[in-house]
Amino acid sequence: MDKKLSQIDFKDFEKRKRAAFVNSLSGFKSANLIGTISEKGQSNLSIVSSVFHLGADPALLGFIIRPDISPRHTLDNIRQTGFCTLNHVNEKIWKKAHQTSARYPEEVSEFDACQLSEIYVDDFKAPFVAESNLRLALKFIREVSIKENGTHMLIMEIEHAYLDQQFISESGFVDIEGLGSVAVSGLDSYHKTSRLGRLSYAKTDRSPSVLSEK
Amino acid sequence: MDKKLSQIDFKDFEKRKRAAFVNSLSGFKSANLIGTISEKGQSNLSIVSSVFHLGADPALLGFIIRPDISPRHTLDNIRQTGFCTLNHVNEKIWKKAHQTSARYPEEVSEFDACQLSEIYVDDFKAPFVAESNLRLALKFIREVSIKENGTHMLIMEIEHAYLDQQFISESGFVDIEGLGSVAVSGLDSYHKTSRLGRLSYAKTDRSPSVLSEK
Repeated sequence: MDKKLSQIDFKDFEKRKRAAFVNSLSGFKSANLIGTISEKGQSNLSIVSSVFHLGADPALLGFIIRPDISPRHTLDNIRQTGFCTLNHVNEKIWKKAHQTSARYPEEVSEFDACQLSEIYVDDFKAPFVAESNLRLALKFIREVSIKENGTHMLIMEIEHAYLDQQFISESGFVDIEGLGSVAVSGLDSYHKTSRLGRLSYAKTDRSPSVLSEK
Repeated sequence: MDKKLSQIDFKDFEKRKRAAFVNSLSGFKSANLIGTISEKGQSNLSIVSSVFHLGADPALLGFIIRPDISPRHTLDNIRQTGFCTLNHVNEKIWKKAHQTSARYPEEVSEFDACQLSEIYVDDFKAPFVAESNLRLALKFIREVSIKENGTHMLIMEIEHAYLDQQFISESGFVDIEGLGSVAVSGLDSYHKTSRLGRLSYAKTDRSPSVLSEK
């Protein structure tokens, strides 16, 4: 059965090539825009591909911030205010979303520079992206320092979720493909998806069956 | 521009519905099979959707283990041996991969129960999945307790990567779509992907362009 795959010695790759390669290895990644505002009122928007599910009760997610690569503004603002928004990147805004990773100076809002619409909802202390079809209001819980490489993992609690209810099934599943959300691979590749199927909860005495519920 | 999305009060959802809902919110997830073996020689295979990129140099990735939901065997084996493998789930094995989440007793190997082929390469102390087109040999670095919900984040270093070299571009990008890797949404939905495009490194003075390199 072995396809005799090659062992790739990436440790000798030149720095940029190594970054592109290693960033590809974990599999498909989420594509999200993190919206924040400083205490002085300067908004910031930053694309991140490291958001992951941490738990459902309490509703927690985590993401990684690299102070040396991504602008520190997102991290600074979350530390200052204790809040941020998370907005799914979709097929209509993926290029604008990617552009937020350019190194704009602190006094420039990526909302303006990348032509994405900044909105404030229900007095929440961070800006949402109007063009996103799934938006979350997140509260800062804690940060964990990853001493191995100087990055920070932020643990955030989901306070509110905003989306069109027709994309939520009876069982709670959200059709993020229907919402147009995209996936990322590597540093710069964006993908739309096409569902293979949903599978029943796995039991030891039977094979999984494809769910009919959308 | 606001589409007047509804605020969803998921905190009142029944437990299973809440889990399905919150698991959908972080966006698309990677689909990986973690292979381990106990000191006594009992192999184990477990699907995880929480693997995320942590850094390229050193080459690190992380994932979350929930001892109360997923069998502890994966966590126990990694603590015992210090190693595991990570194998991308692809379009040919997604149903078998899902089936590894059933609660098999400790003495049953999910490789056998789910009909996936267990192989050992280069004396590495954990089993790989022969049917996977991208396989990593991982070394345990450290675990971080997430006290908010009793889960564990494992920090792992990538020692070796195995894949067909024709899917690695000049720049280091790996075409995981070409390798057949799939994405997950929610608890049980599997997706193949279709590339929108790769974008150039974002600069403040220009819009991103679509890269011609595949």
